[in-house]
Amino acid sequence: MSLASQHEQKDLATYMQALGERARAASQTIALADTHTKNQALLAIAEQLDQQQAALLAANAIDMQHARERNISSALLDRLELTPARLQAMSDGVRQIAGLPDPVGAVSETRRQPNGLDIGRMRVPLGVIGIIYESRPNVTADAAVLCLKSGNAVILRGGSEALQSNQAIATCINAGLESAGLSGDVVQVIETPDREAVGILLTMTESVDVLIPRGGKGLVARVAAEARVPVIKHLDGICHVFIDEFADEQKAVEIAVNSKTYRYGICGAMETLLVAAPIAEQVLPQIQMRLDTAGVEIRGCEQTCQILGNVTAATPDDWATEYLAPIVSVRVVDTPDQAMAHIAQYGSSHTDAIVTENIARARQFVRTVDSSSVMVNAATCFADGYQYGLGAEIGISTDRLHVRGPVGLEGLTTEKYVVTGDGTIRT
Amino acid sequence: MSLASQHEQKDLATYMQALGERARAASQTIALADTHTKNQALLAIAEQLDQQQAALLAANAIDMQHARERNISSALLDRLELTPARLQAMSDGVRQIAGLPDPVGAVSETRRQPNGLDIGRMRVPLGVIGIIYESRPNVTADAAVLCLKSGNAVILRGGSEALQSNQAIATCINAGLESAGLSGDVVQVIETPDREAVGILLTMTESVDVLIPRGGKGLVARVAAEARVPVIKHLDGICHVFIDEFADEQKAVEIAVNSKTYRYGICGAMETLLVAAPIAEQVLPQIQMRLDTAGVEIRGCEQTCQILGNVTAATPDDWATEYLAPIVSVRVVDTPDQAMAHIAQYGSSHTDAIVTENIARARQFVRTVDSSSVMVNAATCFADGYQYGLGAEIGISTDRLHVRGPVGLEGLTTEKYVVTGDGTIRT
Repeated sequence: MSLASQHEQKDLATYMQALGERARAASQTIALADTHTKNQALLAIAEQLDQQQAALLAANAIDMQHARERNISSALLDRLELTPARLQAMSDGVRQIAGLPDPVGAVSETRRQPNGLDIGRMRVPLGVIGIIYESRPNVTADAAVLCLKSGNAVILRGGSEALQSNQAIATCINAGLESAGLSGDVVQVIETPDREAVGILLTMTESVDVLIPRGGKGLVARVAAEARVPVIKHLDGICHVFIDEFADEQKAVEIAVNSKTYRYGICGAMETLLVAAPIAEQVLPQIQMRLDTAGVEIRGCEQTCQILGNVTAATPDDWATEYLAPIVSVRVVDTPDQAMAHIAQYGSSHTDAIVTENIARARQFVRTVDSSSVMVNAATCFADGYQYGLGAEIGISTDRLHVRGPVGLEGLTTEKYVVTGDGTIRT
Repeated sequence: MSLASQHEQKDLATYMQALGERARAASQTIALADTHTKNQALLAIAEQLDQQQAALLAANAIDMQHARERNISSALLDRLELTPARLQAMSDGVRQIAGLPDPVGAVSETRRQPNGLDIGRMRVPLGVIGIIYESRPNVTADAAVLCLKSGNAVILRGGSEALQSNQAIATCINAGLESAGLSGDVVQVIETPDREAVGILLTMTESVDVLIPRGGKGLVARVAAEARVPVIKHLDGICHVFIDEFADEQKAVEIAVNSKTYRYGICGAMETLLVAAPIAEQVLPQIQMRLDTAGVEIRGCEQTCQILGNVTAATPDDWATEYLAPIVSVRVVDTPDQAMAHIAQYGSSHTDAIVTENIARARQFVRTVDSSSVMVNAATCFADGYQYGLGAEIGISTDRLHVRGPVGLEGLTTEKYVVTGDGTIRT
């Protein structure tokens, strides 16, 4: 390593350490901020985003110009772009979060123990959250305000292609925080495009309590592999719908079609349809007709191909693929056990549904399938925080620890025991 | 590395991988076992422990003999030893866990959302738990049956000095599991004393869902530093009692003395006493008298030394020390803020208590102090799972994620969303 780059590395380490220390200090004050103050800050942030529209669009135009010069794909350009409508959606989102109940300070049912102590648990913030994400600049605002409302400080690291946009959004957020008397350090955006900054963030065990990567598989896999700080993450969403032999045909067709076609790119989209053999000949042709109309390609097992004709044969890879595209794999199964074994083998523990009118089958499926969401007679595309009544989400966790499924404000908190006695001693 | 030791390493890796695969397979069946079957296994394990007392004592005698030959300290020998009374306590503990409610399958309050879906959360096991612990063989039984009752498979790694004892206990557990029709692989003990086995266990991300180290700081620090699998851990217990100026003197004295002297070696023992200046001259002499009788050494701040006389001056190191011994550091503070700042600076976020009759002071302390247990008018030595009504605990977590404070059966589970509709689709 050259002396110059050694110097840069040292500067970067110093910069990141200072960022971490400011976040830790800010976390201690935001943890104790009352709901009214936090909501004032949120409303002031929304106001700033509205007022600074011209500055935000100008910053975004610079990012867009750089991205075009680097021949970035049109899909990425679209994700990067801010428009007046998108900025409006951003400030609306901030106002919605101001309207949500504050999880911090809520105390669970407190029970008196035989020793005379009243024991309950109080929700408290996690502390400092690090969020690493990719090109969409709206994540900067969404993630920042969810962390703020839940009493956490946050260190944000967006994609380098959105650097100007993210800093402009951060300026609005900091102004909003300060107008409510809170420290701007509650929300900090890493200001260098240096990729090594992420490497440092992943190991800041003293100043970061949890990391949340939001983005493609490459990013999440890197974070999971390198982080020394605990991670809440979302891996694949290979979601299944199983049409049981006791399904209502009409519901089955609607749920299968909706689960696939509501939006192809969401992690809750169905990627594999499992159909019980006794009902396959009735439902599969109806589903094929609807999916054909929508332009969805079917890749079928042998029996599926026999029933439908004119269908591509599925390879073993298909069962393990998250298409995120208008493609669906279809398998006919002989028993519910075979369906559940398929889900256990190929699924990603994200969201899996059964369609059945039989309560014993539904109970067995719900108990057996080990996914963050298990559904009965509902479309897998419902898997998101708004639909679950969480108000908003920072992502969907496919981890087992701490929080599973959509992560809302409560998922960004932890609990402490509150123990009250009256001079109570242990004998 | 010699060819021979390369061969051994390969054998060890193969052994550990097979162990992990068996645990993963067993976790899938134990997760679905009904409460009655799990309780039958628990009662059969208790029965085995009672019946095999001679074999257990013989195995333990071999461990004790080896330990004596290696000149192990008498404290460690005491922890290693099994006696008929300790075996009785072990099987009693197993029977108690059979009597606890089963957390698995419990569904939280289910609410209907505007989209028509009923949304709740069901408790499910974590999967495979790895537990790494030191010399006390009773941990083998305690940890195994807590994991079993909560529907998890477990891989146990005890201290090498307890190898024979742990294997004898594991034999009883496996026999009990099998007599209830469950796989013996639900509870596996690593059978090699090779320290490298721990290194492998820490990185088995495919087959282990969470690691729980139980032991001294060295062990916990190693696990935290090297693990690639999520960890639930317990670091220091530097617990404080703060006697507020509005404290009832008698309660203050009792709580301070009890918090220190109930047992010196527990993590919930008070290590530092903070006393508000206006009440210090009244309470400190009474506390000193009681602690003198108990043989506890006081190390005081300047004001403490002035009030008490004949007291060692505390050094800055004292405030950061977990004595686990009949020593206590004492500091006089001018304000509650100073007390809380001291706890924030030197505490370990384990358990901290305020003694006060003033509700505003109590509320402020409970809200501000960021510890896994915050107490009002109660002794810190209450910090354990039995006292909190959890029935039993596998340890106390000072982590922020997943579970904080005493970890009982619920802490060994996670949740999944259960979503029920009636052919509900998203529009």
